[in-house]
Amino acid sequence: MKTTEIVLKTIGIIKSPYKTISDAPRQGRLVQTIGTIEIFPEFNEGLKDIEKRSHVILIYWLHQANRNTLVTPTPDSNIPMGVFSIRSPSRPNPLGICTTELIERKGNMLIVKGIDAIDGTPLVDIKPYIPKLDEVSCVDRKE
Amino acid sequence: MKTTEIVLKTIGIIKSPYKTISDAPRQGRLVQTIGTIEIFPEFNEGLKDIEKRSHVILIYWLHQANRNTLVTPTPDSNIPMGVFSIRSPSRPNPLGICTTELIERKGNMLIVKGIDAIDGTPLVDIKPYIPKLDEVSCVDRKE
Repeated sequence: MKTTEIVLKTIGIIKSPYKTISDAPRQGRLVQTIGTIEIFPEFNEGLKDIEKRSHVILIYWLHQANRNTLVTPTPDSNIPMGVFSIRSPSRPNPLGICTTELIERKGNMLIVKGIDAIDGTPLVDIKPYIPKLDEVSCVDRKE
Repeated sequence: MKTTEIVLKTIGIIKSPYKTISDAPRQGRLVQTIGTIEIFPEFNEGLKDIEKRSHVILIYWLHQANRNTLVTPTPDSNIPMGVFSIRSPSRPNPLGICTTELIERKGNMLIVKGIDAIDGTPLVDIKPYIPKLDEVSCVDRKE
């Protein structure tokens, strides 16, 4: 078996106060930054009922990340780690996931709290955060 | 602003006991099914250290899903809901996310518990589950 290609279509764009990667925090969940998600008109209907959700998981494309990195040092370790065992933006498919608080919907715009993406980051999906699916009761957690 | 295209490359494949969509459960987190993730050799180095993680988030491509659906009824509602407010596989970019328990790594194979993907589902990313990023203390949760 070998790698094949999949084509995504961007559904919107993230507007954020971070203009460059060096402005952005490592993880959106750890900050209170407000961002705006603009959904392109052709996908607007998919937002129906989203205002009923308190938190949404954004999936976006880290368009400035390095796709050829497989191991890399981290802020916590000088010893390179495999990219699939860390949350580095550098990875074969630099998809970012971030659980954000949904503050408000205004038409095709979502105001969210807790983002790390830089201004202009392409969005590819939004999913509601559902605790029974997304929270692990890690009694066996190794760290 | 309008939609643009992004090209992903598959990094591996999910082997599961579910041969068809009708065999698969709605959500992997709610079952104990064991699956095997085969990572293609060219990406194997990215698995370094993954055995230190108790849970990993798989991101995969729901290759049999309908990409043109924006609203759809759900098992819980006959009134169609927007796809971005539900976890339906039907959506413009049918990416699945599933938090699974990592049982064992054997070379380029990961044995995981709690999957919903059907056999042969293409994998595009693996991220470690990190509670401070992925668990929300939803005091303001609306449901």
